[in-house]
Formats: sequence, structure tokens, C-alpha cells
Amino acid sequence: MDLAKRAYDHGFRLDPIVRSLLDTDFYKLLMLQMIWREHRDTPVVFQVINRTRSVRLADEIDIGALREQLDHARTLGFTNKELVWLAGNSFYGVKQIFSPDFIGWLTDYRLPDYDLSVQDGQYVLTFAGAWAEVTLWEIPALAILNELRCRVGLRRLGRFEMDVLYSRAKTRLWSKVERLRALPDLALSDFGTRRRHGFLWQRWCIQALKEGLGQAFIGTSNVLHAMENDLEAIGTNGHELPMVLAALAPDDAALARTPYAVLDEWRRHYGGNLLVVLPDAFGTEAFLDQAPDWVADWTGFRPDSAPPIAAGERLIDWWRAHGRDPKEKLLIFSDGMDIDGIEAAHAHFHGRARLSFGWGTNLTNDFRDCSPAFAPELEPISLVCKVAEAGGRPAVKLSDNPEKAVGDPAEIERYRRVFGVRGLTAQPVVV
Amino acid sequence: MDLAKRAYDHGFRLDPIVRSLLDTDFYKLLMLQMIWREHRDTPVVFQVINRTRSVRLADEIDIGALREQLDHARTLGFTNKELVWLAGNSFYGVKQIFSPDFIGWLTDYRLPDYDLSVQDGQYVLTFAGAWAEVTLWEIPALAILNELRCRVGLRRLGRFEMDVLYSRAKTRLWSKVERLRALPDLALSDFGTRRRHGFLWQRWCIQALKEGLGQAFIGTSNVLHAMENDLEAIGTNGHELPMVLAALAPDDAALARTPYAVLDEWRRHYGGNLLVVLPDAFGTEAFLDQAPDWVADWTGFRPDSAPPIAAGERLIDWWRAHGRDPKEKLLIFSDGMDIDGIEAAHAHFHGRARLSFGWGTNLTNDFRDCSPAFAPELEPISLVCKVAEAGGRPAVKLSDNPEKAVGDPAEIERYRRVFGVRGLTAQPVVV
Repeated sequence: MDLAKRAYDHGFRLDPIVRSLLDTDFYKLLMLQMIWREHRDTPVVFQVINRTRSVRLADEIDIGALREQLDHARTLGFTNKELVWLAGNSFYGVKQIFSPDFIGWLTDYRLPDYDLSVQDGQYVLTFAGAWAEVTLWEIPALAILNELRCRVGLRRLGRFEMDVLYSRAKTRLWSKVERLRALPDLALSDFGTRRRHGFLWQRWCIQALKEGLGQAFIGTSNVLHAMENDLEAIGTNGHELPMVLAALAPDDAALARTPYAVLDEWRRHYGGNLLVVLPDAFGTEAFLDQAPDWVADWTGFRPDSAPPIAAGERLIDWWRAHGRDPKEKLLIFSDGMDIDGIEAAHAHFHGRARLSFGWGTNLTNDFRDCSPAFAPELEPISLVCKVAEAGGRPAVKLSDNPEKAVGDPAEIERYRRVFGVRGLTAQPVVV
Repeated sequence: MDLAKRAYDHGFRLDPIVRSLLDTDFYKLLMLQMIWREHRDTPVVFQVINRTRSVRLADEIDIGALREQLDHARTLGFTNKELVWLAGNSFYGVKQIFSPDFIGWLTDYRLPDYDLSVQDGQYVLTFAGAWAEVTLWEIPALAILNELRCRVGLRRLGRFEMDVLYSRAKTRLWSKVERLRALPDLALSDFGTRRRHGFLWQRWCIQALKEGLGQAFIGTSNVLHAMENDLEAIGTNGHELPMVLAALAPDDAALARTPYAVLDEWRRHYGGNLLVVLPDAFGTEAFLDQAPDWVADWTGFRPDSAPPIAAGERLIDWWRAHGRDPKEKLLIFSDGMDIDGIEAAHAHFHGRARLSFGWGTNLTNDFRDCSPAFAPELEPISLVCKVAEAGGRPAVKLSDNPEKAVGDPAEIERYRRVFGVRGLTAQPVVV
């Protein structure tokens, strides 16, 4: 026995959940560079929202343990190795996608302070400050809350029960891998950082996909896992861009233009396969209705809240109406996907458009019915971290699924007036 | 990293399969004590027989590696701790079941030499010498061959595939445990040493049963695992006793008396729950036909080659015919049992007799369809190590299943003439 190792291990003050600022989703870094250039001082507030209200997170997770993890994340800086890699690696086939001045700014970056309180059994966790400072909190905040909750579940299990738990979860994931192998021309990536069971489990899942799917596994949204496992970092842009810019719009006319203004800004910074439209922030129908023709030149769409097959059909129709060949266009499905939905969408669209799947919670946190003992904390919940305010005004997301709408009710009404409500269909939000 | 550990680990000359002489089945020690008292110098030959002829063991397993493992086993002696435990522990509720003079003899015991050659792709592995010297070879020889073969299979797998393999095997075993939990008054023990996938896997299986079944898991046949996991050591007697004594019988009349002479000898050495009859060495029907009434006083029967339900019914009838209450008698099923057969026998006999299950190959070596890559060596085979000769004469086992008969064909004919062939039913031999 290595006495020194044992003594050291038993002296751990903390088992940190987030150990690197690269342990985040790639789209955050792409968005951050644009935010830093264009809107770095815009005041925003991000807020964690638990959409699974039945789970009283503040009763399950100890507030002291949560503060310790958040405080630990605040001690992290990008390491020299990480910055050299960000500067030198090619992303989406582009060299030096991150400029030297941005890398320079990252060098001294630390996560800013947070505000934490409890209300009705839920944590009220907010991050207020300059947009460029606070945006990176999204992923570590979610990963910390999810993993702390899973640890509560794990503490209910004996050593042996844990072994059975992980054996079952591995067996389940591998059975999914075997089904995925049967899909020709599959392109799939890990999008599971924010809702993962834990960092090490996400790594196992990624290695399983790399081993089992080969070239069909195109990469991971997690920048750290991408670097450490020699994989492509995957991701483009998220809802925070249109949400913040919409909140800043001076009037209804400017609000209506926001979805396209965001894309216009994005294409000034990025090109090629990074030109992926996230159309649903204020409703996909409204977006497509008013979209300028140049939007049809973009590489693809990532429908994120409508049922995948209906959404894909609508987008294919739209491309055709704009004289584009859908076969040259990309559809990225990433909303609550699991093996059945991936198979169904693949069967439906294969050969009709380029397809890609972003597999999240059901990849990195599918422990349902895996525990040999009662441990409800191992079931995933629907936790998000969204912009709540920008420039002192409430931020809003409508989404194609009214169940996923966030924001001040009066503002939601205003947005619905401006963008219309066509195409909105309520769906249960699972994960 | 612990540099010393890594350097040491990489310098292993051999990863020994058998690391203790207690890594054997308990019945071998009980039989050995009697053999040592009554027949220690009787010359016998034990021989390994691969009943799964389609598997060419000598093509799969390197002969050098086999010699190294056998030679390593020959270096082992009982340790002081092991002898103190054998002398001081209670077995089947009996203190000092092993006498001081026998323990004294064990102190200097080593496994004797072996003879190894190859014929038609099979190993011819024999152990010749005084019965008390060679009998202990049975279990280590089988465990070594089985584990070496599994290692051949494992070498086909990558690190990740091994992880999936064991996850699937653990998941499968645990699903069996969950079914076993539903059986009231279950009594089940591990009998899987000889056909195990490996020592460490057997330990995992034992710990799974201990954790999952609680009191329904009554122990293990493996003496080392029993000692290390604070479990009961389980087992009584095996076919070698009647086989050797039958070979020594001077004429047909003495041969016909042998099955009862063996029991008579056994009851002079052991009592109580160790009085378990193994009735099938020369056919159960013949045995019951001629059995003296005192055999019905014994605790129970272990039918070992007839279909369990038919065998149990026959024994219950026999007890009743002899005026004994089957509810006070014990039926031990241990021939190729798995979860379906255990459930069926339990459903059939529960409440009608005391029941106990000895779970072997399908407990400790069920990796069928678990490997994510081609690795046929991970499927179990039917390997046995039987007495081939005693006192210079061929030894014979008829069994209730002619497929399991062993011995010189002319002698088998003679035994069939002496004992008759009623009740013999051919069944495929799976494990």
C-alpha cells in the first residue's frame, strides 16, 4: 500500500466538480469572443431555473457544499497549456479562430461573484455583471448542481450497489451504441456537459462513443474533453444572443429585427460550418416568415424545441421555397434526444438532408432504473441557466414549446404580440 | 503516481491463478481427511477430461503458460494462518472437524508432480501417486485451465471492451440475484470454483450473493473465499470415493456393495448435515434398489446427473417408501443449475422437502454474449478431473446420464451388468 497516497487521499478538503475553465461547452467560447468584441460591458443577469419543480433542490443539496463548489470554480484560471491549445488548435477546420487579443483577455479571466439564496425549496442562483464576465458561469453552475445532486443519490448506496449501478449504466449505454452503429452515415456528438451525472462519467460516455462509433462520433461540446481525448469541439451559438439583443431593442420594430441582427453579427465573426441557425428563440414560424434570403445560405438549422420530424420537414420546405437543395443543408437535432428519437429522425431524414445529432442528458445522465437501492436523486432533472435581464430589462425566450418559455409574463405577452404565436405546440419538458 | 508500485507491477513474472492451497473446494478437504486415514497409500491416477471436444484446449492455451501455473501451484504450502483457521473454525456446526494429526500432516503438504502432454489438440494432464497426495490437484488443475482459457479470450479485448464485458456480466448476475430474492426460504451456495472465469470474478460473484441474498446465501464451496469473506464452507463428498473403492473391489459382489461401503465409511468419520448421499455414481435406481434402510436416516441426497425434478420426485418417493418424512429431508441440486432451473425446482419442491442449491458454472462463468468482440474462449466448457485408475485398475463412473459416463469401455460394460441400466437417461452435457 502506498501510505503517502492513502494519507493524502483521506485528507481531501473538497472533491472539486469543475477543475478547469475549459470544462464548458464550446459554443460559450465562440459566443464569448463575439460578446467580448461587441457587447462586453452590457449588464446582464443569468439565473438558474429548475424546471422540474417537484424536485426541491435546496432540500436535497447542502448549501455549504454548493458554495464550496462555486467558490472553487472561481479560483480557476485558464492554464497556459489550455490557452496555447485554444490559440493553436483548428476548430471546424479554421485556424486561429480565437484571436490573440481575446486569448490575452482570457489569460486573467476568473468567474465573477454569484448570488445564492433559497426560496420555496429552490435555489435562487444568479450571476449579475458585464455580459463578457458572467456568461461563462452557465455550464459550470449547471454541472455543479447536477453532480452535487447525483452525489446525494450515490451516498445512499453501498460500495457494492454503486458497482451494480455503474455496470447497469454502462451496459445500457453500450446497448445504445450497438443500435447507433446500425445507422448509416450517422454523425453524432456529445452535448451532455450541463446535465451530466458527473465529469468522470461523461468521460466514460465519450470514450464509449469514440470506441463504439468511430467516425460516426464527430466530437463533444465539452472543450476539456475534446482537448484531452483528441476530439473535435462541437457547438456554435445559443439562445443568449437573441435573448440579450432582444431585451436591448429600443422598440417593437427593433425587437422584430433582432433574430436576423444576431445572425448578421455572427456571420461577421464566423463562417463555414459555424453558420448554424438556432431559429426558435421567439418561435420558428415567425423566424422563417420574416427571414431574409441570405439566411438560406447558411449551413444549417438547429431546431431546439419543436418535435424533430415536424421541425425538420418545415425547414426542408423552407429551404426548397428559397430555391436551396436540402441535401446540401444540415439539420442538427439536440433537444432531449435519445436512441429512439435518433433512430426515428435518422430513418425519416436520411438521404434528404445532412443530419447531425447532439446527444445530451440521455447520453451523460441516463441512470433511470439503474440503482439497486432507492436513490431518486440519480434521475435527471430539467435544469437551465438563462439570461433573466439585459440592460436592466427582462429577457425573454418564447421557444416553439410554450412550456419552455422563460421571462417576465408581461414581456412574454409583448413578444408574442410582436412575433405571433403560430407553430407553438406545448410538449412536456422531460430533460 | 507511485513509481515503485508501477515498476514492481510491470516486473511481474507470473500472475498466479492459484495462490493458496485453500483455494479449493471444501469437500476435497473432508474427503482427504478420510482418505488420509483409511486409504492414504492407495495408488490412483486422476485425469483432466475436456467433455467439450469441439474446443481444442491445447491449441488455445500455451503449454508453457500452463506449466508455469501448475508449477507455481506446486510451490504453495498451507500457511500458518490457514491451518489455524482450519483447526479452530466450526464447519457445519462441528468444532475441530479436522483432527490435529491431520492438520499436522497438511503442514508439510505440497501438490505432487504432474504429467502433461498433448493428443489431438487436447491436453493429457494426469496426476499419479498416493491417493492422499494427488486428490487435491482436482480443483486447482481445473481452475488453472479455465482461467488460462479465459485469459486467452480477454487478450482479444481492448481496455474498453473489457469494461463493457464485466459491466454486462455484473448486470446479468444482479438480474439473477433479483429473481432469486423472490424465492421464499431459498438456500443457495456457490459451487463455482472449478469452472470459474477467474478467482477475482468468483469473489465478486460471492460478494454479490452475500449482499443481494443475505441469509439465503448459505456459503461457498471455496475454502479460501469462505475464510476471507466470513462465510460457511459448503460441501460433503464426491464421486471419487465410490469410484476408487469400486475399482479396488475384488469381485462383482464386492463391487455391488461399494456404494454402501463408502457411506458406511463416511458415517464413521462425519455426522449431522455432512451425511449427504451422492447416489448417482453407478446409477441412482440401482443405488436406491439395494440401499440398506439406514441410508434413509441420512440428512439428504445430492442428485447430480438426473433431471432435477424427476430425481427429486424419485427420492421423495423413496423416503416415503422407507417411512421417512421428506419434509425433514434435504435435496441438494448442483448439476448445471441456472436461474430458470433453480426457480423451477424451487416452485416444484418448496414445502415438500428441504431444498438447497449449489450454483456452479452459471454463477461464476456466465459471460455468454457479454463480449463486445469475438472471444469464444469466454464461453464455459465442460472440463472435469476424474479418477482414471485406482490400485492399477480402471475407475468407472456410470452416472444417471450416459453422456457423463467415464472409464474404460469394457469396465463400463461390466459395471452396467452389475448395477443395471434402469433410470439412465441421456441428456446433453452443457457445463
